Amino acid sequence: MKIKVINGPNLNMLGSREPEKYGNDTLDDINKKLLELAAENDLEIEFYQSNHEGELVDCIQSCLSSCDGIIINAGAYTHTSVAVRDAIASVSKIPAVEVHLTNPHTRENFRHKSLIADVCVGTVAGFGAESYVLALNWFAKKK
Amino acid sequence: MKIKVINGPNLNMLGSREPEKYGNDTLDDINKKLLELAAENDLEIEFYQSNHEGELVDCIQSCLSSCDGIIINAGAYTHTSVAVRDAIASVSKIPAVEVHLTNPHTRENFRHKSLIADVCVGTVAGFGAESYVLALNWFAKKK
Amino acid sequence: MKIKVINGPNLNMLGSREPEKYGNDTLDDINKKLLELAAENDLEIEFYQSNHEGELVDCIQSCLSSCDGIIINAGAYTHTSVAVRDAIASVSKIPAVEVHLTNPHTRENFRHKSLIADVCVGTVAGFGAESYVLALNWFAKKK
Amino acid sequence: MKIKVINGPNLNMLGSREPEKYGNDTLDDINKKLLELAAENDLEIEFYQSNHEGELVDCIQSCLSSCDGIIINAGAYTHTSVAVRDAIASVSKIPAVEVHLTNPHTRENFRHKSLIADVCVGTVAGFGAESYVLALNWFAKKK
Amino acid sequence: MKIKVINGPNLNMLGSREPEKYGNDTLDDINKKLLELAAENDLEIEFYQSNHEGELVDCIQSCLSSCDGIIINAGAYTHTSVAVRDAIASVSKIPAVEVHLTNPHTRENFRHKSLIADVCVGTVAGFGAESYVLALNWFAKKK
Amino acid sequence: MKIKVINGPNLNMLGSREPEKYGNDTLDDINKKLLELAAENDLEIEFYQSNHEGELVDCIQSCLSSCDGIIINAGAYTHTSVAVRDAIASVSKIPAVEVHLTNPHTRENFRHKSLIADVCVGTVAGFGAESYVLALNWFAKKK
Amino acid sequence: MKIKVINGPNLNMLGSREPEKYGNDTLDDINKKLLELAAENDLEIEFYQSNHEGELVDCIQSCLSSCDGIIINAGAYTHTSVAVRDAIASVSKIPAVEVHLTNPHTRENFRHKSLIADVCVGTVAGFGAESYVLALNWFAKKK
Amino acid sequence: MKIKVINGPNLNMLGSREPEKYGNDTLDDINKKLLELAAENDLEIEFYQSNHEGELVDCIQSCLSSCDGIIINAGAYTHTSVAVRDAIASVSKIPAVEVHLTNPHTRENFRHKSLIADVCVGTVAGFGAESYVLALNWFAKKK
Amino acid sequence: MKIKVINGPNLNMLGSREPEKYGNDTLDDINKKLLELAAENDLEIEFYQSNHEGELVDCIQSCLSSCDGIIINAGAYTHTSVAVRDAIASVSKIPAVEVHLTNPHTRENFRHKSLIADVCVGTVAGFGAESYVLALNWFAKKK
Amino acid sequence: MKIKVINGPNLNMLGSREPEKYGNDTLDDINKKLLELAAENDLEIEFYQSNHEGELVDCIQSCLSSCDGIIINAGAYTHTSVAVRDAIASVSKIPAVEVHLTNPHTRENFRHKSLIADVCVGTVAGFGAESYVLALNWFAKKK
Amino acid sequence: MKIKVINGPNLNMLGSREPEKYGNDTLDDINKKLLELAAENDLEIEFYQSNHEGELVDCIQSCLSSCDGIIINAGAYTHTSVAVRDAIASVSKIPAVEVHLTNPHTRENFRHKSLIADVCVGTVAGFGAESYVLALNWFAKKK
Amino acid sequence: MKIKVINGPNLNMLGSREPEKYGNDTLDDINKKLLELAAENDLEIEFYQSNHEGELVDCIQSCLSSCDGIIINAGAYTHTSVAVRDAIASVSKIPAVEVHLTNPHTRENFRHKSLIADVCVGTVAGFGAESYVLALNWFAKKK
Repeated sequence: MKIKVINGPNLNMLGSREPEKYGNDTLDDINKKLLELAAENDLEIEFYQSNHEGELVDCIQSCLSSCDGIIINAGAYTHTSVAVRDAIASVSKIPAVEVHLTNPHTRENFRHKSLIADVCVGTVAGFGAESYVLALNWFAKKK
Repeated sequence: MKIKVINGPNLNMLGSREPEKYGNDTLDDINKKLLELAAENDLEIEFYQSNHEGELVDCIQSCLSSCDGIIINAGAYTHTSVAVRDAIASVSKIPAVEVHLTNPHTRENFRHKSLIADVCVGTVAGFGAESYVLALNWFAKKK
Repeated sequence: MKIKVINGPNLNMLGSREPEKYGNDTLDDINKKLLELAAENDLEIEFYQSNHEGELVDCIQSCLSSCDGIIINAGAYTHTSVAVRDAIASVSKIPAVEVHLTNPHTRENFRHKSLIADVCVGTVAGFGAESYVLALNWFAKKK
Repeated sequence: MKIKVINGPNLNMLGSREPEKYGNDTLDDINKKLLELAAENDLEIEFYQSNHEGELVDCIQSCLSSCDGIIINAGAYTHTSVAVRDAIASVSKIPAVEVHLTNPHTRENFRHKSLIADVCVGTVAGFGAESYVLALNWFAKKK
Repeated sequence: MKIKVINGPNLNMLGSREPEKYGNDTLDDINKKLLELAAENDLEIEFYQSNHEGELVDCIQSCLSSCDGIIINAGAYTHTSVAVRDAIASVSKIPAVEVHLTNPHTRENFRHKSLIADVCVGTVAGFGAESYVLALNWFAKKK
Repeated sequence: MKIKVINGPNLNMLGSREPEKYGNDTLDDINKKLLELAAENDLEIEFYQSNHEGELVDCIQSCLSSCDGIIINAGAYTHTSVAVRDAIASVSKIPAVEVHLTNPHTRENFRHKSLIADVCVGTVAGFGAESYVLALNWFAKKK
Repeated sequence: MKIKVINGPNLNMLGSREPEKYGNDTLDDINKKLLELAAENDLEIEFYQSNHEGELVDCIQSCLSSCDGIIINAGAYTHTSVAVRDAIASVSKIPAVEVHLTNPHTRENFRHKSLIADVCVGTVAGFGAESYVLALNWFAKKK
Repeated sequence: MKIKVINGPNLNMLGSREPEKYGNDTLDDINKKLLELAAENDLEIEFYQSNHEGELVDCIQSCLSSCDGIIINAGAYTHTSVAVRDAIASVSKIPAVEVHLTNPHTRENFRHKSLIADVCVGTVAGFGAESYVLALNWFAKKK
Repeated sequence: MKIKVINGPNLNMLGSREPEKYGNDTLDDINKKLLELAAENDLEIEFYQSNHEGELVDCIQSCLSSCDGIIINAGAYTHTSVAVRDAIASVSKIPAVEVHLTNPHTRENFRHKSLIADVCVGTVAGFGAESYVLALNWFAKKK
Repeated sequence: MKIKVINGPNLNMLGSREPEKYGNDTLDDINKKLLELAAENDLEIEFYQSNHEGELVDCIQSCLSSCDGIIINAGAYTHTSVAVRDAIASVSKIPAVEVHLTNPHTRENFRHKSLIADVCVGTVAGFGAESYVLALNWFAKKK
Repeated sequence: MKIKVINGPNLNMLGSREPEKYGNDTLDDINKKLLELAAENDLEIEFYQSNHEGELVDCIQSCLSSCDGIIINAGAYTHTSVAVRDAIASVSKIPAVEVHLTNPHTRENFRHKSLIADVCVGTVAGFGAESYVLALNWFAKKK
Repeated sequence: MKIKVINGPNLNMLGSREPEKYGNDTLDDINKKLLELAAENDLEIEFYQSNHEGELVDCIQSCLSSCDGIIINAGAYTHTSVAVRDAIASVSKIPAVEVHLTNPHTRENFRHKSLIADVCVGTVAGFGAESYVLALNWFAKKK
């Protein structure tokens, strides 16, 4: 079982970006945690990050033939991208889980609406890096 | 470490209530899973269910002196109860995690707004009974 | 065939409560009329009133195993209670009819939206005590 | 006592129009039921159907001098016609009852608002042909 | 002259609940102040607190036969409860005064709308415990 | 110079229709006043009333070749008819004046918006029958 | 009979202000027309213009004891001033007529709502200087 | 295969009506083009135009037994008529294509919403007379 | 301790202005009551009334150096004046209390929103002249 | 005459993407149809597809110097991209036609608004692959 | 070339008013900077400040004959005054530049809408006193 | 001190794109002006333009380590891109200034809302190429 972890815009800035909000972990720190957990659970895992909406769409489409599940933190595109949403819907044969580091409901109004929530299996939000871990737990268990 | 699992209105109907939407597990089935997981992780766990907004408020308030964390599926009150929200906020010294069996964003409009999301640490939604399990995982890990 | 007639908050005040709006009949007066009509039509009938949202939810849930139809005037909860709505939906095997003494559309804006209308078979509103009678007529006929 | 039963646009299509939604009864089938019930209760009854907003206004106005009550299913005009509303208000000396075959709240958003509800005595909705029957019952009783 | 002071959900948490917002006074501290003021003015005074919407409705209804005025801080129900509103309206023969510790307009949007304001005589908000005192002053004076 | 006075739905009910709102004058009474004023000012005048949106559209279109100005009280269609609006726009070579007996802004919300106001030269509203007179005055003067 | 003609902000700029929209007549030109018409009809007439909301309120209040009718073009304050509205309401013993040179519905959205329309007898809008003349006609006639 | 081309209100004014917006072609000119194209493609074609909402409903209903496809430019009723929409839905066995001469999105806000779009197969808008031609092309091809 | 009592537009009309709504007391009658209460409590008190938004802003600004507290009934400007709000905020070193004679929530929609509520310490509304008295009580007590 | 056919995000998935909604044709199948039709009509035709908003903007801009017309199915960007809209507007010397496979009005609310409709000549929507064909027909004819 | 710098309500309080938001500079400090810059650039400069909407309107109108450009910080009236907007529009022969000390988009919602932005040449906001300087730079350059 | 001037989508079309709206200057013309001004003020300056949201995000992120200030005209992304906004916020250690050639408030509604305004220091809009110049002036001065 292979899981793709897809991160959207500005998540490559983790660690230096508003640490009081997003914590001090870099994206690499998070990925290392996930690699360990994946190894323990005999899951293959791959990472992708892009600031480009179109590249994220490309990547999601490619999952159809290359992996068995998606963990996606679409960042800002969560709230504005019908294209990312349509991409997830177009590969609906493989389950996708939406994750967020922070709890979007404690932030600006324009972050309260997720355009991808209803084409994902479920959402894990607000636990920092642990949001990814919980999502991976779910895949590990349903394997 | 003691965790209170609080279920709101109509969750006592699980199993018989719209099984195509909520699955065939009863609330007891879910609680058994959680008991096992708690035992494995040396967590104490207690369950509460009520259809009454006021009883849920009483129960949440009582957590302040009786437990170390809350897992809450406030059911319909998620969307209408400022009182439940205020109760969670009034015991903010102990962390609360919001869970949902289904993904509210795939349902009616009036379920898209959570009044309690921003006074909880985070949200796990859409994974059926596993939503509770993932939430408990988080408590187990941060213990 | 057994019908449960469920009345929500403040309907116990009928007769003394704003009689120019709700008439001089008490809830007992209405119930007596319904008892007679039930007797004529060989229907069993039971009455329940509560000001408590949670008790109404409990009562609706209990109908699943104890009666064959529901006539419900949810009063103020018509407009605010997702919990009452979910309860009716969770016993959707037995038909429920929504009734109102007055016509909600002639009153305040917040009474124009019914949260329970679309999980009931139908609505009878605006005929005073006769709203209940017409609803019971429908059950009598479809018996 | 003479009752006018007025049906608005597309109700002449009943039976052939989306039968999964409106049932297989034609408007004539419904009218026959009403005629029988009227006969049993010594009520005179007359039927009118038109797809034309203006003709419905004409017909409602004419009721002032020709009958004692109106049962109206204004169909699509329920949601768009201030003219039909004003016509009902202009003959407010005789009571009008709004009926619907289906429950408008289970359908598209633009059917949730009734422009005529608050100039009618009351509403009966969602019981199919029985909606008309219950409305006629009310006239029979108050005769 | 007998005044009922009714407090809604979470007001029993005063003192421990977000003291930076609500101050350090407990509900008992406030009640003591009111008792003294009542004694000075020859007013009888009684206290009631509940987290349950339905119990507040019951309590308000009971005032009709048991007291001459109501001071009510409906807490979270101020913003969500049509039932509490209807209860106050149903005992409109005795005057009710709405009080709030904090100024709702300085807080979240969902606290800006009071459903009970227009069935009360008036509102006193933002003066902490003194809001109750001012309300009682008014009753003392109009005695 | 020939002026067409066009009246929309339910204005044929003037005199009997809610006289406390619309006064006791019938449409004939108003027309007589206008005839006199027209005669004094050497204006030809013609009257048309219909409850039918389509007939009003037909009539407005026919004005293009048959008269020099329009005084129109579109009644309920003022607020709902894009077709009447388009008809007035399609004969924009001849000026149209919008009149109302009552002041729409003192009535229901759905009467506050006029769909025809911005394709008319101007509006005269709220003066009862005098609204028509003032509009005719304007034509008399600009002749 | 004495009529006060009150003009609000920027109407003193008539003639030089956007003449393609407001025409070339100055406020003095309009006033001269009105003086003549007043003389012909044995009406006394007085003029007032101010750019100050408060001065307009003062002036309206003073009408209570000094004149028998008001013609008011409140200009920009039509759309923003509750104070002007309240002033007109406070002298409701004498009739006020709202006038506008242009048709507000053909302009920006924020000009579509009149705050004073429903405390005036009626409105005349869109006829340029003739709007004032028609309003004065009405007073002349009802004298 | 027989196609009915249905035109709504004010389309009979084409040619003389705001030619800068709708062009100089009359409805007859358009119909001639369609007749030729129909002849080339062995399609029968019939034309109907009415300014009356009810007549359009009648005509659409009659298509059920008299033709195999509908091309409809509902004009102003596109934006206001639930009755026309319901009529199209009631004959959904035969496909309907919505056409517009102009592009509604470049015009007033109230023309941006089509009530019939989602009960039609598709929409062709903005190509002037060619909009009809393209729609007929589609029928010709699918024949 | 010196308190400034500031009254906004049209409050100088009290007594003659819609007495059924505002009572028969003039502003002088109210001020006399306040003077007596101030004397009893050793408070200095000064009165200001203006219909001019700018004068009210000037007056509020001047309070910074001339008094210790403000009681303000901003009348209509409560709902429209950001300038008055900013003035109160700019003298936030001295506490301001918002008062209203009537309960704004029982009146028109545009009176439901107070622009100054959240820059005042608190609000007293709905008690007629007693609203001022209660506000002064608060200052007396906290002296 | 050279036409550019531009397809936006996820249209490369046609055939495998939700075939019950979009049919079984791949984008290549559609393009082949268009190539044939172009050949028959002596039109040059070129195809472009990208999931990247920026690449679509680049491509549209390049049309200014490289082709004579645009057929664009902007997919998800139809509803979210002001950049694509501005690009089309910036090459307004060459006509663009908006096409959609499905009828956006039968889908989610966020697909009802097209940001590009009013900078295109016209729209063809809902005919599946034939939407492109009809658009090309139009270019063929106006050549 | 003469420039008028116009400041609206509460800007006379600069320095003492919420210095953490507006800085410690007084309006005089800002004006001195502008005087120097004007001198360097051979511009005449004049200052005006008022808390009165009407006085600001008067002042703007007077600019028509007395100066060549306007720099205006309308303060609170930016968001509420159609009168100030109309005044600027009425002197549109001379350019006006809108300035703000703070960035209105980082503040309350009611400050996000500027009623004067679209009748000004441009806007400079968020640079503190430098906002005025940049605006004057622009006049200096275009001289 | 190094300043990055970042231009978003379609700004590369300046000169040819709607010159009546954007002027005849190309982006190169503007950049030349800025280079000169930078040289005069001993500022280093670099230019970047892209039509790609993701590339703009990349570029903004890279500023953190490569320059000391940002001047950004995000074009269409101003109104739709949360990603660009988050990128600016993630480099908040260096100040960013928002510029626009035209005044967005004079254009379509969807251009009235800036998603980046509140994460920038300030905004300069409406002065054509001079908007950039004024922004650079600000950096020159604060150096």
